Amino acid sequence: MGREATSAVVLLSGGVDSSVLLHHVVRTLHCTPVYAMSFDYGQRHKKELACARWQAEAAGVAEHRILDVSFLGDAVRAATALVAGGEPVPDLAALPEDDRDQPPTYVPNRNMVLLSIAAAYAEARGVRDVFYGAQARDEYGYWDCTTAFVKNLNRVLGLNRRNAVTVHAPFVWMKKCDTVQTGLDLGVDFSHTWSCYRGGDTACGTCPTCVERLLAFREAGAPDPLPYA
Amino acid sequence: MGREATSAVVLLSGGVDSSVLLHHVVRTLHCTPVYAMSFDYGQRHKKELACARWQAEAAGVAEHRILDVSFLGDAVRAATALVAGGEPVPDLAALPEDDRDQPPTYVPNRNMVLLSIAAAYAEARGVRDVFYGAQARDEYGYWDCTTAFVKNLNRVLGLNRRNAVTVHAPFVWMKKCDTVQTGLDLGVDFSHTWSCYRGGDTACGTCPTCVERLLAFREAGAPDPLPYA
Repeated sequence: MGREATSAVVLLSGGVDSSVLLHHVVRTLHCTPVYAMSFDYGQRHKKELACARWQAEAAGVAEHRILDVSFLGDAVRAATALVAGGEPVPDLAALPEDDRDQPPTYVPNRNMVLLSIAAAYAEARGVRDVFYGAQARDEYGYWDCTTAFVKNLNRVLGLNRRNAVTVHAPFVWMKKCDTVQTGLDLGVDFSHTWSCYRGGDTACGTCPTCVERLLAFREAGAPDPLPYA
Repeated sequence: MGREATSAVVLLSGGVDSSVLLHHVVRTLHCTPVYAMSFDYGQRHKKELACARWQAEAAGVAEHRILDVSFLGDAVRAATALVAGGEPVPDLAALPEDDRDQPPTYVPNRNMVLLSIAAAYAEARGVRDVFYGAQARDEYGYWDCTTAFVKNLNRVLGLNRRNAVTVHAPFVWMKKCDTVQTGLDLGVDFSHTWSCYRGGDTACGTCPTCVERLLAFREAGAPDPLPYA
């Protein structure tokens, strides 16, 4: 209150976490102006980008950019299940214990690429704060969704001699059901979010992110408005 | 030497430092296969990309990719002189003392973006080593061409749970004349390298990188084969 309004860049995939984060940044943190950035990297679930557009409009951001970084998908296709044309997306139940530290749905260095671009964009506009909806998962995990990743990334960005940008991941230790609850409290319309990695017409209900999403809604005591196969 | 051949990714701009680095990695370090990566980010001096192609062929790399990341130039144009359509490139002599820590030719977070992409590409191919021709300059400087930058970047990449990539900048503390000498010893054809930020038909001779290049050749006691305005 009386605090000067802070501008922000928000990484917006169109999934649950980043959609709730966007509304949180706009309506709870009162950042303004807010710039949302989404990326087409050749993901199977391109449907998420339409959801990103919907949420950006609903939140009333100053600008929403969807950048074409499909060269990234081209460069890493052989090593990930998340890019169209790569190996198939496994069911969570079929994911070997050994693979849960870096499952096939991991996209090589994707998050560092996207955050670097967001930081470049922020720096050029004099925006100091980039928000990132990373969540350290229990069931399976990604090294680039951890607090250590964010902390060390900020060590790099902090070396900037003029306009150092900081990456914030306020949901990193929250349980996904708490993120859903935060979204419900903010009135986020979850029918315009997309998670399923398989990217079909309806969500599959069995891939790692569907299982996680369904569980989160169940734990939050709310129905998931998405249709499932 | 009995040491197993190591594959490598080399960031290749087509300038003096990265061109010498490429030949150094191929012929002195005996890395194989070597993948070269160049980037079109909307730089004024797009001529450097033709030089990059020439050097990659001369070095006999396994693959040379020129990725279109012009969205980066679009995102940061207002804040840099290096992108076509941005503010004009200043002469080194006209660069205020105060601006030498982050001169107008600095491109917001460009190097982190390009290195992140190179690391993604390397990781997806099982390549552990990315080479980067950064040189910490005396006359003016960039935070993302320093040992601290590379060290902290490697702290981030080192968190990868499977295939951690390491960025190497073997020329970071070398004087540019020593890089030129290394290139001369390796028989690098400097008539196929491009430095001038202004990107005209001939090099201008007065922008920061031209001044630096001319001085380096003078100190190395060799003529610079490029025509100057």
